[in-house]
Amino acid sequence: MVQNVARADPAIIDALAGYGVATVHEAQGRTGLLAHYMRPIYRGAGVAGSAVTALVTPGDNWMIHVAAEQCRRGDILVVAPMSPCDDGYFGDLLGTSLQARGVRALVIDAGVRDVATLTEMKFPVWSKCICAQGTIKASLGAVNVPLICAAQRVEAGDVIVADDDGVVVVPRGSAAATAQAAARRVAAEEDKRQRLASGELGLDLYQMREKLAQLGLKYV
Amino acid sequence: MVQNVARADPAIIDALAGYGVATVHEAQGRTGLLAHYMRPIYRGAGVAGSAVTALVTPGDNWMIHVAAEQCRRGDILVVAPMSPCDDGYFGDLLGTSLQARGVRALVIDAGVRDVATLTEMKFPVWSKCICAQGTIKASLGAVNVPLICAAQRVEAGDVIVADDDGVVVVPRGSAAATAQAAARRVAAEEDKRQRLASGELGLDLYQMREKLAQLGLKYV
Amino acid sequence: MVQNVARADPAIIDALAGYGVATVHEAQGRTGLLAHYMRPIYRGAGVAGSAVTALVTPGDNWMIHVAAEQCRRGDILVVAPMSPCDDGYFGDLLGTSLQARGVRALVIDAGVRDVATLTEMKFPVWSKCICAQGTIKASLGAVNVPLICAAQRVEAGDVIVADDDGVVVVPRGSAAATAQAAARRVAAEEDKRQRLASGELGLDLYQMREKLAQLGLKYV
Amino acid sequence: MVQNVARADPAIIDALAGYGVATVHEAQGRTGLLAHYMRPIYRGAGVAGSAVTALVTPGDNWMIHVAAEQCRRGDILVVAPMSPCDDGYFGDLLGTSLQARGVRALVIDAGVRDVATLTEMKFPVWSKCICAQGTIKASLGAVNVPLICAAQRVEAGDVIVADDDGVVVVPRGSAAATAQAAARRVAAEEDKRQRLASGELGLDLYQMREKLAQLGLKYV
Amino acid sequence: MVQNVARADPAIIDALAGYGVATVHEAQGRTGLLAHYMRPIYRGAGVAGSAVTALVTPGDNWMIHVAAEQCRRGDILVVAPMSPCDDGYFGDLLGTSLQARGVRALVIDAGVRDVATLTEMKFPVWSKCICAQGTIKASLGAVNVPLICAAQRVEAGDVIVADDDGVVVVPRGSAAATAQAAARRVAAEEDKRQRLASGELGLDLYQMREKLAQLGLKYV
Amino acid sequence: MVQNVARADPAIIDALAGYGVATVHEAQGRTGLLAHYMRPIYRGAGVAGSAVTALVTPGDNWMIHVAAEQCRRGDILVVAPMSPCDDGYFGDLLGTSLQARGVRALVIDAGVRDVATLTEMKFPVWSKCICAQGTIKASLGAVNVPLICAAQRVEAGDVIVADDDGVVVVPRGSAAATAQAAARRVAAEEDKRQRLASGELGLDLYQMREKLAQLGLKYV
Repeated sequence: MVQNVARADPAIIDALAGYGVATVHEAQGRTGLLAHYMRPIYRGAGVAGSAVTALVTPGDNWMIHVAAEQCRRGDILVVAPMSPCDDGYFGDLLGTSLQARGVRALVIDAGVRDVATLTEMKFPVWSKCICAQGTIKASLGAVNVPLICAAQRVEAGDVIVADDDGVVVVPRGSAAATAQAAARRVAAEEDKRQRLASGELGLDLYQMREKLAQLGLKYV
Repeated sequence: MVQNVARADPAIIDALAGYGVATVHEAQGRTGLLAHYMRPIYRGAGVAGSAVTALVTPGDNWMIHVAAEQCRRGDILVVAPMSPCDDGYFGDLLGTSLQARGVRALVIDAGVRDVATLTEMKFPVWSKCICAQGTIKASLGAVNVPLICAAQRVEAGDVIVADDDGVVVVPRGSAAATAQAAARRVAAEEDKRQRLASGELGLDLYQMREKLAQLGLKYV
Repeated sequence: MVQNVARADPAIIDALAGYGVATVHEAQGRTGLLAHYMRPIYRGAGVAGSAVTALVTPGDNWMIHVAAEQCRRGDILVVAPMSPCDDGYFGDLLGTSLQARGVRALVIDAGVRDVATLTEMKFPVWSKCICAQGTIKASLGAVNVPLICAAQRVEAGDVIVADDDGVVVVPRGSAAATAQAAARRVAAEEDKRQRLASGELGLDLYQMREKLAQLGLKYV
Repeated sequence: MVQNVARADPAIIDALAGYGVATVHEAQGRTGLLAHYMRPIYRGAGVAGSAVTALVTPGDNWMIHVAAEQCRRGDILVVAPMSPCDDGYFGDLLGTSLQARGVRALVIDAGVRDVATLTEMKFPVWSKCICAQGTIKASLGAVNVPLICAAQRVEAGDVIVADDDGVVVVPRGSAAATAQAAARRVAAEEDKRQRLASGELGLDLYQMREKLAQLGLKYV
Repeated sequence: MVQNVARADPAIIDALAGYGVATVHEAQGRTGLLAHYMRPIYRGAGVAGSAVTALVTPGDNWMIHVAAEQCRRGDILVVAPMSPCDDGYFGDLLGTSLQARGVRALVIDAGVRDVATLTEMKFPVWSKCICAQGTIKASLGAVNVPLICAAQRVEAGDVIVADDDGVVVVPRGSAAATAQAAARRVAAEEDKRQRLASGELGLDLYQMREKLAQLGLKYV
Repeated sequence: MVQNVARADPAIIDALAGYGVATVHEAQGRTGLLAHYMRPIYRGAGVAGSAVTALVTPGDNWMIHVAAEQCRRGDILVVAPMSPCDDGYFGDLLGTSLQARGVRALVIDAGVRDVATLTEMKFPVWSKCICAQGTIKASLGAVNVPLICAAQRVEAGDVIVADDDGVVVVPRGSAAATAQAAARRVAAEEDKRQRLASGELGLDLYQMREKLAQLGLKYV
């Protein structure tokens, strides 16, 4: 149980939410993307927040209660089991508790349940699956330690960005630089989008024809 | 083909529908949940009904027609293949037929098709997958025999509860007791929900702090 | 890069879109269905078009840009990697480009990203998964060659039909005959649907009782 | 914890071992086969025994120790978790203990470890996977209750047959009849095997040609 | 049922067997490899032969008997179901029949059983899985038609090469050229192998250092 | 490309190899186990070594050649792709090169080929799959950077232990302490093994009966 976790600048976190997962992932050199089996329980949510991490044992959600106390307004709770488990660790009561504390979302490499209620509450969750299987409260895990969640390492205080495309983690130390790179990327894309919308080909826009010919592309 | 199947009390069945899958699963001691790959073809349906079971051969949906005759108002048809198969055993014509007979839903450990039409018709289906692959009508199976559907045993007359969280089976003999246990659980949760919504922590609400300390949880 | 591809009659293509995947699949003898893991990024789209095919290397989407130039109004771009890959080959910029050229949809045996924007744009995609993982532009593939996409062979100019039930490929040469067979099937189903809706059983409608008895079905 | 379990006749159990999984599965009407992901940790073992069942919680192998006391010479221990789990519930120490009590094999719908030592000891295991992940001893389960193991229901005292083809369960009450049916099948196959080995075709041996022609098989 | 199938030159087929799957796959431009879930039932077999193809319905192995008659000495039987199916379509009796006819192997995108006996008989099989689930004989399929087997198209008469690395298909028309390319590759590899075995680095042997530096590889 | 990597004491590394994966995993508190899909290409190898890490792009094995130069006698090469990929990145030529440099094994979260030759050479590989699919040499990755391999983080210089049970990573800094804990565990197990072999029950050996009774275990 690690208690004092440094967080990134809230303005940067909110900016990253605005850029979205695909852009942030590109902006930090195509790194940090969680495995794509992490899906939102409902479409249309797009958030970013500081990670509070909880490492749990299989079929036991006790540490989520412990982690809840460490969550502040603007955080995202990131949960991973010590070995793969699809049980439904989280439901509407925990969602109510986290929402009351200002937590923005849950990211869990396991199952979640009560998804109809969580959807009504507008508490977004990205999970491995939807599964009603209940869990117990018997074993200790750890809170705010570094963990592997869906094939990416997450440290407490890292920035989590999540939307319909999935979830990406941005190390706290590089959050500002990543936000700047994302801003540049978005600006550059605007012009491209307009030219592509007007019918210009990517082949011309990105000046690919010569390089393709050099590599031997033949038209028959 | 077993014809006369006892059913649970309709009032109890409807009560179980109201409690939902997660609560019913907890109320019967965390048992009876079908594998979580069983997903609804559209969100928002929540039903319960008496199981009529159909055991089918791979790629052959003939027994579904036989089973349709055994279905009464308020039933849910439960279909499982003799060996795993993802073919699309069921479409809008069968859905029309079952809906005309008052059947509330289909639960099938295989594929389903015509999902756009079934969604429009508001005929809910929980299935392993959506798959348009057609099936034939050539081999016998069995109707209203006990079968394994998505890792749970279902007998004809058992109560099936299904919603966005998945599907749970309640043995007919324990349906009343399970409904009572679910009612108690729902009542108990209401108070908890309000306290959690007001910001009280689960650690305090469930008086977990002492036990966690005994087990050795350390704050650093 | 093959440039001149024959296409089927646009009227036939549009007719096939109207019949939908399940009916077209049945009409051509239960063939041509792509693997059911190919799912739409949003529900409710139903399209048909002429296939332009792009064979890509793992993690490299360069050939999609090359293929874009070969796409005409009414086409559907079909992309398959040379070995299985879940990366996000396609996003909203490519969607904008294809939409500007009148392309009706993308079918890709790999990942796609920017799905929120593609949904807003109403550019439908059927893909293996949603994945934000970025790709590079470094290796040649091939355009308008026959390829295997999700367990079916697709040639440039074949007709692709896609809806909520999945994706089916109709060889260009048999598109007219398949459309006629589908029309007959739809007509025949209308009467059946009404009889089933009125409560008639499939057992009687399809005259199955005698054959079932011959095969030994027993009622107990 | 159910203690007194009836077992089938040892002579019948041994006969079933001799017939093997495929034959026994056929002899009881193609039923009882566990999911094919259940694989032996080494090739060449072929056993049968009376099931002692243990239902365990995810990541917790305590009940295997409890079950060990109920095992007698000639038994096979069948373990299933309450929700899917791949952890390594069983290793060489437990194997030593069971082997000392005359247990013939382990069938576990989860992981196993120390497979090199278990192979040397010639203690056969059929499992979902090989996984070294350790488990704890904290939660109760149940012993000798009916359970679902790899998609089949197993009751204590049922006969388990396992070999390189997988695992099949034979209900205790029908073990004798199944053994007789298997004996007939083996006898009938011997003649067929010799005729096929001499080059006679199955088409002729099984007199299939006429039926195939009736169904419309055409040679072109 | 197509009867007269052209086959490649037996000497070329045998040469391809000698080169093995990985080399043949490279020699034909990294194409033709079946999905890697196709695994041998025992290690150490390496074969090549002319494909006889059988398209079967789910859970029905009748067409394998029909195909057996079309098999000649030196052939490999290639079986694919019309929709995915893991049942055990093939066992030791069919293996005996095919071996009597001089068939070299079975390649099946489904399950196989009696693997202990097939291993003793030294009849090699590459399959999707090992599964004892029995099949019926009720539906027609097709023999010697082109089919998709494990994500590759196979035509009757194509050359199949299979070993511990998997299975590759070589179109009949390019078998000779592929064999020549494979021979060149093997010859070129011999010198490389000796230089690598003596401790020379691939970086030097393939002269990669300059190109890596140009691309920006930095040593820190 | 990081060049100077600290390694653990060779004596400790060799000791860890002797204890094996399951024991080392337990000795470090049940952490460090790679996902169980990482399987040896042949049974019976048991090794430990210092990790040299290579991060590769999908379908491109160039960085393995770069990494080879950084490998010293006693190392184990650990390879992970930037996004999941099953291609066959490694074969007998690379195996020859690494073996010539004294490398003890390859651990790769992707495919491997030429497994028959690698087995003959006794060069052990733990991989995600066996797959002959060829790769290219076109894109840069990184060598000796921390990476995620099969759900565990590996840094260059960490100790890798691998045997028939899978693969575990031991951080370099804790290798000595882990080896000591493993030694204690092995010593303690010897006595237990003998008592269990003599028929003593785990229930008595571990004094579980009282605690089970307290938790409510009932014998019926």
